[in-house]
Amino acid sequence: MYQPINLAEKLTRFQDHWAPRVVAEMNDTQFKLAKFQGEFVWHVHEDTDEVFLVLHGEMEIAFRDGAVTLRAGEMFVVPKGREHITRAASECQVLLVEPRGVVNTGEAGGELTAAQDAWI
Amino acid sequence: MYQPINLAEKLTRFQDHWAPRVVAEMNDTQFKLAKFQGEFVWHVHEDTDEVFLVLHGEMEIAFRDGAVTLRAGEMFVVPKGREHITRAASECQVLLVEPRGVVNTGEAGGELTAAQDAWI
Repeated sequence: MYQPINLAEKLTRFQDHWAPRVVAEMNDTQFKLAKFQGEFVWHVHEDTDEVFLVLHGEMEIAFRDGAVTLRAGEMFVVPKGREHITRAASECQVLLVEPRGVVNTGEAGGELTAAQDAWI
Repeated sequence: MYQPINLAEKLTRFQDHWAPRVVAEMNDTQFKLAKFQGEFVWHVHEDTDEVFLVLHGEMEIAFRDGAVTLRAGEMFVVPKGREHITRAASECQVLLVEPRGVVNTGEAGGELTAAQDAWI
């Protein structure tokens, strides 16, 4: 009746990069798993902060005036309105936390824009 | 300038049980670390869901009609309005996610009620 959400098991269910999958919702906040590899696009979320928690691997979040490297067990909150880009030299597995309805590319759009509300 | 939030390092900064420490905020949502050992109290959060993500160890969340066991890498969303109690036979380290202002004991009160907004 009550089942845990096992993140490692959920991560086996998809292989594509830059395509977050929703695994849980708390009120209007979504928890999404994603696999990053290579470089994303510069973009901004004008209306919300965005949380990255690295589960496996290593990634960088770069801003116009600096950057932060995140490894497994490390998290970071990108403040709303702050332009950023994400990169991972090899595959990095991440838990994203952000409000329902956030578009991954923000206002930048483009081919890396992922589907909304893709649950696994 | 930009620094990762290292959960393992933050967990070294406190030892008491059932006393969540805030490590990050995303909009009005707080991310808190906590150490659980023994049994908490039955309580309910009438206005919000509550997320538990186990980082180390094992815990149980019991409801009046069932229970779920969470181990490292597993999460669960307690729905708002659902009475529950948390237990851990030995120390369990947990990341909690819930709106700012949530009282850990809900409307139950009592000696296990923790301080709000205790940042580390």
